[in-house]
Formats: sequence, structure tokens, C-alpha cells
Amino acid sequence: MSKKLKLGIPKGSLQDATIALFARAGWNIYASGRSYFPSIDDTEIECMLVRAQEMARYVETGALDAGLTGNDWILENLADVERVTSLTYSKASRTKVKWVLAVPEDSPYQKAEDLAGKTIATELVEYSKRFFAERNIPVKVEFSWGATEVKPPMLADAIVEVTETGSSLRANRLRIIEVLMESETQLIANKAAWQDEFKRKKIETLSLMLNGAMAAQSQIGLMLNVEKTNLDAVLDVLPALNSPTVSELRDKNWVAVNTILEQHTVRDIVPKLKAAGGTGIVEFPLSKVVL
Amino acid sequence: MSKKLKLGIPKGSLQDATIALFARAGWNIYASGRSYFPSIDDTEIECMLVRAQEMARYVETGALDAGLTGNDWILENLADVERVTSLTYSKASRTKVKWVLAVPEDSPYQKAEDLAGKTIATELVEYSKRFFAERNIPVKVEFSWGATEVKPPMLADAIVEVTETGSSLRANRLRIIEVLMESETQLIANKAAWQDEFKRKKIETLSLMLNGAMAAQSQIGLMLNVEKTNLDAVLDVLPALNSPTVSELRDKNWVAVNTILEQHTVRDIVPKLKAAGGTGIVEFPLSKVVL
Amino acid sequence: MSKKLKLGIPKGSLQDATIALFARAGWNIYASGRSYFPSIDDTEIECMLVRAQEMARYVETGALDAGLTGNDWILENLADVERVTSLTYSKASRTKVKWVLAVPEDSPYQKAEDLAGKTIATELVEYSKRFFAERNIPVKVEFSWGATEVKPPMLADAIVEVTETGSSLRANRLRIIEVLMESETQLIANKAAWQDEFKRKKIETLSLMLNGAMAAQSQIGLMLNVEKTNLDAVLDVLPALNSPTVSELRDKNWVAVNTILEQHTVRDIVPKLKAAGGTGIVEFPLSKVVL
Amino acid sequence: MSKKLKLGIPKGSLQDATIALFARAGWNIYASGRSYFPSIDDTEIECMLVRAQEMARYVETGALDAGLTGNDWILENLADVERVTSLTYSKASRTKVKWVLAVPEDSPYQKAEDLAGKTIATELVEYSKRFFAERNIPVKVEFSWGATEVKPPMLADAIVEVTETGSSLRANRLRIIEVLMESETQLIANKAAWQDEFKRKKIETLSLMLNGAMAAQSQIGLMLNVEKTNLDAVLDVLPALNSPTVSELRDKNWVAVNTILEQHTVRDIVPKLKAAGGTGIVEFPLSKVVL
Amino acid sequence: MSKKLKLGIPKGSLQDATIALFARAGWNIYASGRSYFPSIDDTEIECMLVRAQEMARYVETGALDAGLTGNDWILENLADVERVTSLTYSKASRTKVKWVLAVPEDSPYQKAEDLAGKTIATELVEYSKRFFAERNIPVKVEFSWGATEVKPPMLADAIVEVTETGSSLRANRLRIIEVLMESETQLIANKAAWQDEFKRKKIETLSLMLNGAMAAQSQIGLMLNVEKTNLDAVLDVLPALNSPTVSELRDKNWVAVNTILEQHTVRDIVPKLKAAGGTGIVEFPLSKVVL
Amino acid sequence: MSKKLKLGIPKGSLQDATIALFARAGWNIYASGRSYFPSIDDTEIECMLVRAQEMARYVETGALDAGLTGNDWILENLADVERVTSLTYSKASRTKVKWVLAVPEDSPYQKAEDLAGKTIATELVEYSKRFFAERNIPVKVEFSWGATEVKPPMLADAIVEVTETGSSLRANRLRIIEVLMESETQLIANKAAWQDEFKRKKIETLSLMLNGAMAAQSQIGLMLNVEKTNLDAVLDVLPALNSPTVSELRDKNWVAVNTILEQHTVRDIVPKLKAAGGTGIVEFPLSKVVL
Repeated sequence: MSKKLKLGIPKGSLQDATIALFARAGWNIYASGRSYFPSIDDTEIECMLVRAQEMARYVETGALDAGLTGNDWILENLADVERVTSLTYSKASRTKVKWVLAVPEDSPYQKAEDLAGKTIATELVEYSKRFFAERNIPVKVEFSWGATEVKPPMLADAIVEVTETGSSLRANRLRIIEVLMESETQLIANKAAWQDEFKRKKIETLSLMLNGAMAAQSQIGLMLNVEKTNLDAVLDVLPALNSPTVSELRDKNWVAVNTILEQHTVRDIVPKLKAAGGTGIVEFPLSKVVL
Repeated sequence: MSKKLKLGIPKGSLQDATIALFARAGWNIYASGRSYFPSIDDTEIECMLVRAQEMARYVETGALDAGLTGNDWILENLADVERVTSLTYSKASRTKVKWVLAVPEDSPYQKAEDLAGKTIATELVEYSKRFFAERNIPVKVEFSWGATEVKPPMLADAIVEVTETGSSLRANRLRIIEVLMESETQLIANKAAWQDEFKRKKIETLSLMLNGAMAAQSQIGLMLNVEKTNLDAVLDVLPALNSPTVSELRDKNWVAVNTILEQHTVRDIVPKLKAAGGTGIVEFPLSKVVL
Repeated sequence: MSKKLKLGIPKGSLQDATIALFARAGWNIYASGRSYFPSIDDTEIECMLVRAQEMARYVETGALDAGLTGNDWILENLADVERVTSLTYSKASRTKVKWVLAVPEDSPYQKAEDLAGKTIATELVEYSKRFFAERNIPVKVEFSWGATEVKPPMLADAIVEVTETGSSLRANRLRIIEVLMESETQLIANKAAWQDEFKRKKIETLSLMLNGAMAAQSQIGLMLNVEKTNLDAVLDVLPALNSPTVSELRDKNWVAVNTILEQHTVRDIVPKLKAAGGTGIVEFPLSKVVL
Repeated sequence: MSKKLKLGIPKGSLQDATIALFARAGWNIYASGRSYFPSIDDTEIECMLVRAQEMARYVETGALDAGLTGNDWILENLADVERVTSLTYSKASRTKVKWVLAVPEDSPYQKAEDLAGKTIATELVEYSKRFFAERNIPVKVEFSWGATEVKPPMLADAIVEVTETGSSLRANRLRIIEVLMESETQLIANKAAWQDEFKRKKIETLSLMLNGAMAAQSQIGLMLNVEKTNLDAVLDVLPALNSPTVSELRDKNWVAVNTILEQHTVRDIVPKLKAAGGTGIVEFPLSKVVL
Repeated sequence: MSKKLKLGIPKGSLQDATIALFARAGWNIYASGRSYFPSIDDTEIECMLVRAQEMARYVETGALDAGLTGNDWILENLADVERVTSLTYSKASRTKVKWVLAVPEDSPYQKAEDLAGKTIATELVEYSKRFFAERNIPVKVEFSWGATEVKPPMLADAIVEVTETGSSLRANRLRIIEVLMESETQLIANKAAWQDEFKRKKIETLSLMLNGAMAAQSQIGLMLNVEKTNLDAVLDVLPALNSPTVSELRDKNWVAVNTILEQHTVRDIVPKLKAAGGTGIVEFPLSKVVL
Repeated sequence: MSKKLKLGIPKGSLQDATIALFARAGWNIYASGRSYFPSIDDTEIECMLVRAQEMARYVETGALDAGLTGNDWILENLADVERVTSLTYSKASRTKVKWVLAVPEDSPYQKAEDLAGKTIATELVEYSKRFFAERNIPVKVEFSWGATEVKPPMLADAIVEVTETGSSLRANRLRIIEVLMESETQLIANKAAWQDEFKRKKIETLSLMLNGAMAAQSQIGLMLNVEKTNLDAVLDVLPALNSPTVSELRDKNWVAVNTILEQHTVRDIVPKLKAAGGTGIVEFPLSKVVL
């Protein structure tokens, strides 16, 4: 039988974003209806949908060779796994999430210590227990099945909850008093699988292409022509980081400049390029960037 | 301040069915977007959306006076609450659900005892632990965050899972080897609230009207005319349970018969009524039935 | 093995309307996704989805015991089957459909005879051939895979096509020159099945209840009170067909009148009833009417 | 040519609710896509969709014989029309709407007089001008094309705006300082049309049936049996307004009671009826109520 | 406090197209639900949604520094504002719209003068009044709240209405007798803001990038290789306007040609390029074009 | 009158994919609602929607000059047409379809010969008859109106049916015993039209651009920089087929490489390019590829 990498794809809120990222990276995953074993157009990979909360547990035991999950759930499970790369994306955006300690807006609590003797509701039970234990604050940490942010003050005194923008906390009139952790998605590998040559190479290829696809999400290509006398002025405008490609044209007085830019800088840089003598400026989309 | 009954409505899969049942019973609940405190058109009630899994816990502590949840989660929490009435409805149908012990179709396990030393994944951790402990079967029961039925054999050896029709289990090639419990929705009350006159009366009114609305779901009204000479033959066809109402008509040779029938019996009874001499048979829908 | 009636349900445009009609009649049919063997909550019936065009063919051969299809397709196949009852309903409305011979609005053709030597496109090939042959008009009848009404004049000279309101024909600038047939849905039975006692009784029960449910679609119940002195005036307003039920009240000067009306007559009759002395007039919906 | 009543149906937010009300009253109106002349299944009526704001203007001039619009727009246009009946329904609910004078929450304005010299944005320009003129408050009233509630304080100092629940005002941090008018839907008629026998009778029939359908929205039918000894107790529980119908049964010790109740009273009355000896209590829906 | 440009985004039919255009230009605007103050990812800009009809009024008074609206509404308000650039886009397409004088198809009116003494319905009241006054044609111009094209002949004699393709006019059987104005979207600025260095520079950057993004909508990039002997033939095929970029290849007999083409010309030019000796022809999409 | 090419677009399952392909090729086709004559932005083409089953028949007779349909339906009709080019695309994917002879999984039939005397249901009646006749196997071939795969064993013994992935056959428990034909979409022309200079040129332009757009679907552009010392290693990694374009840079030690790759090879090639010394690797999307 041919070799296979057993790969865990996070089920739930990250699922669609993950499948879309793999598609951009070059792997098409087909998740159909009820099945938890989506097919993938790579005979060397076998996918399984697994909840992000449980991913690290199953990668640690070797039930899966590799998987994607948040740093938060790796720490919750204290899982002993290889962290291959960070991939900062989440359901709707591309920012990190935060786990915070939050209390009712109009409560007297100002810091973690004020919660001694109180009840804390959270989905992240073990990590939260360790957090309070390390500070010698005696609290009761209760597992919450969801809708945690609505519990204070009726059903809990405080919560440890995940947030991207804080808007759900504000909508429930909660106030953040401490940030416990920032978290982003990680590609993780089982430690034995990481020592297997076939599996390690496959995981590294995944890592390279996933990063290449992610980079292309926020970067664009820019081409322009410039008279040689203006070339320095034009190059001064461009960020030093990615050295632009300058190619010779048939008309020896001119060169073409080809570069990669962060998308959000274009609106600032293009007016400056034009002022510096750039002409025929065109921006074009990229699908992958591997520098 | 006026008295209020704090009532927990199950968040999630039962939520829409519950709100629809309350509407039929006479209470309109407005659950808007993100809020967990739906409004209700009864100034004596205050609603809160709470997960079915946690409902019994909060009714027991008195954070809520009453609530609706499954018998399964009452037992999981070993909650000490007053069971007011059973209301057999669930997300899509009106049948009870079952919690079953299931194993891979092609595994050798035939009974619970065969799982000694194995790993069981379930959302119903405490109840499952007690089940195996009572039989002295040593197993490892792991909490499952969902998608439990897909775990065997890769991620668990067996599962304890809820099912209505068994179709999801079959689709995942699992075989039921034991039924642990049947469960249906219960209206439960806090024990102290049950002793409070105002609250008890309110809960009893809810119970009466919810049951009245549920009964009307499966029953219909039937009216027909019949010559007096045929009345006995007609009455013989009707179920004895609900005695039909027979009223005098202006034409003294005839009477009108008005009765309530289980909906699923109509297709069998109407042909017999017609054969027995019933005429002008009409079926009409009911909104509530309180016998 | 228990006896079963093999019943064909028309697949396609009539499918949803048929399943809805059966539900109102008392049988719930569950057609799920791709399956052509919907389940039904009656252990004595076995359903199969079959195209209306082929239904009569398979009922004739006995592959099915009974089925619903249009009169048009029975005639197209010249199928030798028992016609049990007509059920006038179609996809969107409850009227009969017509098969018509239509030509381009601005063509010179005025009657069937003018089409001698021409090409006729239709889905109803055999019936159309017989129609022209009986009149000794030589034409070429071509099978059309659909979108027949768009073919003249480029792809055909005339068409034989089905229409409910004629709007699709008008939109394609076609003119009707002859109506070949009116058609409505029929419940048909295999001739041998019709002689089998069990099957015939089952089919007759279906017929009774389907008709009862259809009648209830267009009829409503009306109750009112009237002083005895006004009773004749009130009864004069009501249609003679269904004799109203007049019942005695406790107050001996009054009677209650209970009757069934065609829905579309209510807006005319209620004002007259009020003028004639009717009070407390209420209209209520019906689910079945078996007179 | 046959006589026709030219009837204006309000285009826009009230359109769907109006068409649904007519359907319940017995008239089916088909509004298809872009057409402003919906068809209706009554050869004596011709419908036109007209904006509520302009309805009264066109009913006054006789371009329309009758129409439905809000009291607010009748007053805005100072239209001289016959008010036939009020029909309290609106887009989402069945309550009246209010036109209010609103200012920014944190502004100093406490009453209309405080706005002297300020700019008021509103869709109801003429009525607002009269309101301020009658009080001798000099203000500038500007026509607002919509989104009026977002204008203060940047684009206006105060607004005159319509509101059902006040939630949109609160969301925009506005405070109501005065209610100018309450408004509900009216069936209005042209004064000359009201003198025409055919048109007046048609309008009165519409009025009767629309009111009958509206009443049925909030009322239900209730039937129960009661022993004669308990009849007075049962009748005491029922509202005096609609005298219940009491009919004789074959069993002379019992009577049947049939009555109409406001839907929202059922949950209070049914428990009392049961306590008073009512049995076999069933509630059934009504389609029309004409007392 | 940091400087901010107050920018009006047109609410309504142009809103989505405008936000999409800004996104392509490099600014992400988040319009959420009910809020009229969408956020934007540029700390130097503050957005407000304002109806196109009112935009010029508020830019003129300085309530807004700049905004996008149609030329039609600038003229209707006779607003004294700086016109920065035209941006030809509209709801569905990228063409200009026209305001026309239209009359019923079968009416006798042939020119504006024929409407003397008649009633004209329009949303563009002031501009229409000036149009007729300049020609000394006495008419009554009435404000129309919408659905203007359906008013003739019942509710008005003629209309002044906006149209892109004329299809809605035709559907309502109206005939255009005069075009009053062509209109397209404009970026306008308050006159004082235009003199402020910070604001003017910000507005100019917006203008440059919006135009760059719009140009890229209809243009594409084309790359091909060509032997030097065929270069002139290839260049002859390309439009003279944008001089193509010709670059040296390692193989000295060949050059690469890179150019920008109007999208709709590609299907004509590519076959000619191939015939002229072009090889390896690839078309790629562009995101911005600043020549 | 100007010359026009009459072009048939396949109605039904291929319609959307065909219109999308034409859009990418440079022709926008607008199919609106009920009309079978979609407009196209090319005054030299006239489109008509025609069922794929009938396309070849009408192209043969000259009712259409050209059209797109499957090879299967050309053969079914034995149509004498010019096959211009193959375009491998179908409803959901870009693979060929197969027509297969299939029998119930548990039937004894193993090869076509085993079906002698049996009934075969199919939409491809003529082709199937020829298939069996050539092998001297006597069978009854019946026309099937659809849902063919559900017919065995109740309504037919075997079927000839089209399949892409075989999943629908498997779901109906059918087993393939022979593949009759592979089929893909063809651009076909009427033989006379193919001799007409204007029409042939137009058809060839369509063929060139449709193929160019299809090629771009599965190919991408790749640019990278490489030191001259590593150029050979980099070129070794790239497929020999499309010779990459190598251009001179200003920095004489470096060159830029620009090439086209099959999309599915990117994930394998990029890691190798990086290993061989490629830097600044970017992938960008293509809209057309004409080599």
C-alpha cells in the first residue's frame, strides 16, 4: 500500500477558511455533506475533519500525522507536538484571536486577584485553572458549553473567553480585565511522523505552499516603465525589503520595473511612483508568493 | 417590583421547536439575533436562553425557576429538580431520543462487557461513567466535543451517542450494542420555586397550555351528520376514549356528531363512517385540546 | 410477507403538489434527495417516483399497481388501465391543462389542414400522429426534447404543446389554431390489481381521501346564529346544494346554522347573510370534506 | 363596458401585508414583477400600486375611486376624502405608528419651542410646517429623502420621523420630545365615488370583509362541553361581550358551549374553564369573524 | 486631534457599487446593518452614507468635505461645489444615465411644447421646472415619490425620468420625446475643503486611485514573444495609444512584448497577433492601471 | 443586412458552463428568463438556446450554422456535420463523460451478450440499437424520459446511461458491464456554412478564443529571478513543453524567468525551483493562453 499522510482539518468555524486556503495552495479538498473524511486530490494525503479543540490530542497520540489547530487548544491539552509553522488566519479575518478574562461592566472586579472565591465559566478549563493556580488565586472554573459571554452575572461571576474584536463582549456589557493568551492557527505534526522522511517532506511542502498562498493574499504585483534618469527616484519610493526586478527594454533609455507590494501600501505608493516619473503603472493579482 | 418567573429556554437544536410550541400555547417569545434574553409577551415571565446541557444545573441552583431540557441532561448532572411534565418533542419530530452504545459495524464487540480496557468517546461523560461502573467494566470515557459518531475506530473504540432514527450511526458504519437511556423533553422546576404559590401556579398554567398545544398537533376535529337510525353504527366506529358530542338538530330524525380524533387514524375511520351512514363529514384543524 | 400496493408518484413538476396532496389526505411521503423510492407512513403501500410520461406504461404492465398521471400520457401510450378517479390539480394551480396546435402569430396557417406537408414538433408524438392521420393530413411529427414553444418558425412549422394559461405561447408569439385535448391528473390502476380485493380496497380508500382533501382546499366551514324568525331568509341566501345543518340552541328563539361553502363565494354570501339577520358569523378552515 | 372600482394598493412597505389581508378577506391579488397594475380575481375591481404618500392625492382627484393609506399621509396632503374604515395593521405588526419630534440624546432641547431658528428634517414637510406654525415657532423644515434618523446633529438639528417601537431612534441616539400624531391605515374613498351606488356598495363589501378577516387574526373559536349544573360557572369565566352559543345535546344533562375569544386571553381563560367544570375544551382557528 | 476628511458615500442603489470600487482602489469600507457611519481602513477619512439626492447640498454647506453623487443631483440642487473627477459607473453597468421627457406611446405629444398646461411627474422637480421655464412652456411639475414611469396616463400626462437602457420605459409603454440631460457619477468637493492642503491632497489621491481601479475594470494585460523579424508586424496590430513595452530576451533573436488592451478588443486582436507571428500569447487580469 | 452566424448554445445542464466559457473567451451572452434567443455583444452572431440532444440535427439541416453539443448526440443523430474542435468541459467538471451499459449489482449479467431478449432503457435509443445490432444481440431498447438509473430491476433489465464519476450508478446499486462511448463537447458547423468565408472565419475565431480561455482555466503564469549560474538547474525543473521566456535584467548576473505551468503541477514544481536557486517566485492567474 502506498504511503499516506493522515491530516486533520479543523471542523467548524475554521473549516471553510482552511479548505479555501488549501485550494489556493494547490490542494482541492471536497467536503460533502455529512462525511468527516473529505476527499483530496493528492493520493499521498488522507484527510479527516476533527474539532480544533481535539486536534492536538489526536496529533499527539499519532491517530493523525499532522493537523491545523489554534495555539490555544495545543496549550489547553498540553499536547507534546511539533509546531511546524504559524498561519495567521481565522474565520473571518487574518488576525490573531485573544483569550481574555472578562467581568460585568458594572462589577467591582479590576484584576484577576479580585475573583478569589468566585466562579469562572469557560470552554478553556485546564488552561484557565493553571492560570489562576500559578497566581495562587482560588477560584471555581466551570466548563461552559457555549454562549459563555451571556452568563455573567446570573450564571457566573466572570468568564475566560475568546474574542477577535471584542464586539460580542461589549454587546453583553462585559469588561476585559486581563488578556491570558494570544492565539493563531498552527500547522502541527506528530513527533514520530516528523522523523519519518516521507511524512516530513510532505508536511514541509504543505507548509511552503500554504505560506506562499497566504502571502499572496496580502500582496500584489506592480509593473511600471521608467526612464533611466528617473530610476533612482522610483526605486527610492519602493520598500527596500523586496528588491524590485529591473529589466532592460529595447528602447535603451527606459527600463521596466517589476515588484511585489503589500496590498495596503498601494494607495500610498502609486501616487509617489507617478510623481517620481513612473508611467504605465499596472497592478496585477498574485496567487502565490515564495520569496 | 412585580413577581417574575425566571424561565430557561433551551438554546440550540431545540430552540426553534420550543419557541414554536410556546407560540401555539399562547406565549410569543422574540429571540433577536445575538441576545440571550428573548422578550416574551407576559410580564410575569423572564426568559433566558440556556444550553440544554446546562439547564438542569442552573434550575437546581435557583439561577432559574424553571426550564425545559432533556431527561438525559438532568441525569448527567444528577440534578435535584422537580419534574413537572414530559413534553415529547424534539428538533424535527415528536419522538423520544435514545442514547446508545455503538461500535464499528465490523468490530468484534457484541456487548458492553467486551469493551473492558477500551476508550469510549461521548458528550454524556458522567452518565456513561456511572453506567460502566455499575457493571464493573473498566473503560476510559473521554469527553467528545461533537462529531462523536465519526470517531471509531480511528479516534475511539466505541461511543455513547444520541440518536433519533439511527441514520447517522448507519451512515458512519456503526452498530448499536446497547440502549443506555430513552430521553424526552421535560419541564422542570426549582424545588423552592415549586413551593412558592405564585411561581407554582404559573408553572402549572404553562404545563396545561403546553400540553394542550401539543395534543392539538396530533389531533383534529371531525363533524358529521347522521340519521338517528344509524347513530349506533357511527358511534361504534369512533374510538371509545373521547366520547363524541351528539347534538340535536332541527330535523328531529338527524343528529350532529362532533369528535376529536388522532390525525393518523382519520384515513382509516372516515371510510368506515361513510359506510356506516355518516354524511357531510368534515375535518377541521385544532389549535388546542384540553380534555 | 405482508401485502403491498405498488404506487407510482409522478416525478418532476407534479411531484411536490402530489406529495402535498397526499399529506393533506393523511399519508406522509418522504422523498429524500436522490432516492426514487420515497418512504410512506403506511406499511401497506410501497412508493416509486416515475415520470408522468411513463406511468401509464408501467401501470399497464403491472410493474406498478396504481399511479397518478395525466390523461394526456395515458392516451399517448394507449395504455389499457382502470381510471379510478380524476384529480384536477397541476403544478401551480387546480385547473385542467390543454394540448394545443400552435403556429407563429404571423403565419398564414388557420386550421390543421393548412399544415399538410409541414413539420410538427411535440413531446406527444403518437397522439399527434393519430390526430393528423384521422383527418388525413400528411405531416412530419418530430419528437421535441423540450422548449418546444420556441421552435417555430426556425426549427419547426407548428407545434403540439401543453399549456395552462397560454402565457408561454404568447410570449413566444404563437397562435393557437386548435385544441387537441384537455387533460387532468388521474388515479389509475392496473386491471388485475383492480380485481384483487386487498388492492382495490386500498385504492378506493386513497381515492376517497384524496378527493376529500382536494374538496377541502376550495371549501370552508361557516357558522352563524340566527333568530328563528329570520331562518328562512338566511337559508335562502345559502346554496341549495349542501343542505346546512340547523341545530337547536338553549335559547329556544335562536338556532345555529353550520354549513360548507365554496371559498370564492364567501365574499358575496357573508354580506347577504348579515343583511338577512345572521349574527356571530365565523368562517373556519377545513382539512377534509366528504359529503 | 362593465363597471369597475379603481382601487389603490399601497406600494412598498405595506404592500405585502395588504395583499395578504385581501387574500384572507377573499380577494386574490397577483402582483408580478415590475407591473404596477396587479390583477385581481374580481372583474369589478381594477388595482393599481401607488405609494402610500401619494394615495390620498389621487383618491381626492378621482384618479382612483378608493385606496388604502395611512392617516399621516391623508393629513400631509390635506386631502378631502371619505374615510371609510380604519384597519390597524402595518408592515410587521398590527399596532399604530407614531410621528415624533426627536433630537440628539445629549442635546439641550427639551420641547418644540427650544428649536426656534433650527433646521428640522422630515419626510412629512407640510404637516410639520403646520405643527410649528400653529405654535408660532419659527423653524426651517427640510425635505428628507430618507434615513432621516441619522441626520442629527451633523445634517439637521432635529427630525420629525415615524416610529413603531422607537428602536431605530434609540439606535441612532435620538430622544423623543413630542408626539405629533398617531397614525393607522385607512380605507378611503373619493367623495363622488362614495355617492355612486355601485361603487359605494363595492367599497362597503370590501370594508366588511377586510374587517372580518382582520378580526379573525386575533380571535379564535373555542368549544367545550359542560354539565348543566356547571353552566353558570363556566359562563361567568367567559367575557360578556360576545354572548356564547349554548346548544342542546342528546344527553340532556349536558350542553355544548361555542364561543369566540381574543387569542391573547386563551392562556388565562382555559385554566379557569377547566376549573369551572368545562371538559373536552378545543380551540380552533378562524378565518373570518363578522359579529 | 488628527485631521479627517469627511466623505459622503451614496446610500441606496449606488452604495454597493461604490463600496466595491473603493475596495478595488485600496480602501475597505465596512457598512454594517443599520449604521450610516461605515468604518473605513484609513484613519484620515470619516465616511457617512448620504442619499445621492442630498449629497451635493451637504457638500456645499461643508457638512461633508467631499462626496460621490450624480451630476443630475448637483444640477437639481444648483449646488456650488468643486467637481473633481467624473467616474462613469452606475448600479449595474458602467454607462451614463439619461433624464428624459417621456409620454404614453399612443399619446399625441411629439415635443415638449405640446405639453403646455399639462401635469409632469418627476423626482427632479427643480431642474424640470427650469427646463420648461427656459422654453416658456407653462406646465405643472409634481413631485413623484417613485414608480414615476407607471403614472401616465392615469396619474400624470408626462414624466421626467431617469433611464439607462429604456427598458423600463418601454415596459410601461412610454415614448421618449426629449433628452434633458446625461448624467454620470462625480467626485465633488466643498470649495473651502478644496483649498485646504491636507484635504485637497487626500481627495486627489482618492481621485487617482479610483480612476486607476476603474480603468483596470475594462483593461487587461497581454504578454507575448515574437521573433525580431516579426516585431513590426506584431506592433502594427496593437493600438497606437498605449505604447507596448518591448524587452530583450536572452535569446537575442526574440523579444517579449507586454501591453495593455481594452478587454473588448482582445477577441479581435489575438487572432491577428497570432497571424503576425506572436507566440506564447497570454492574457492576465489587472487590478489597477495608471498610465 | 449584415451577415450573421447562427450559433446554437446548449440549453440545460451545459448552459451556464457554456455561457461562462464564452464570457472568458470574450463574448458576453445574456440569457434572460424565458427567452430562448439570448443576446450577445457581437453584431455578427445570433444565438439560440437549443437542447444538446437536438443540436446536431439542426446544425445538419442548416437551421443553425454552428453549435456546441456532445459527441454522444452527434452520433445518436448520425448527423453529417463538420467537427471544428473538441472542448472538454461539462456541467461541473472538465472531464469527459461515458455512456455505459449497467445492470443491477446482484444480477447475473456479466457482458452485453447476456442481455439477449431483455429490455434496455436509455435516452440514447438509436446509438444503443446500433450497438446491440452490430453484435447480433436481440434486445428491446425503450426510450426513457429520465431517471433511467432507477429503473432496473423493476422497470427494465439494464440501462445505457451517461456518467461522469459513477456515483449515481453506485447509489442505485448498478454495476457497469461495458463502456459504449466516451463523449465530450464539440464545436460543430454546418457543412455549407463551413465553406462560406465569413462564417468559417467567425467559427475559427470562436474556436481559437474558446480554446485560449479553456487553456487558461488550468494554467497559471510563474515568474522568478535566478542567478545565471543557477539558470540551468532551474530550467531543468520546468517542463520542456512550453519553453520559458528568459529575459535580461539590469543586474547582469541575474535573469528573470517567466513561464506557463499546468496549475496542478505548481505544488510539485515550486519547492524544486526554490531548491534549485529560484527566488522571488510569484504565481499569477491567466485569462487566456494561446501558444
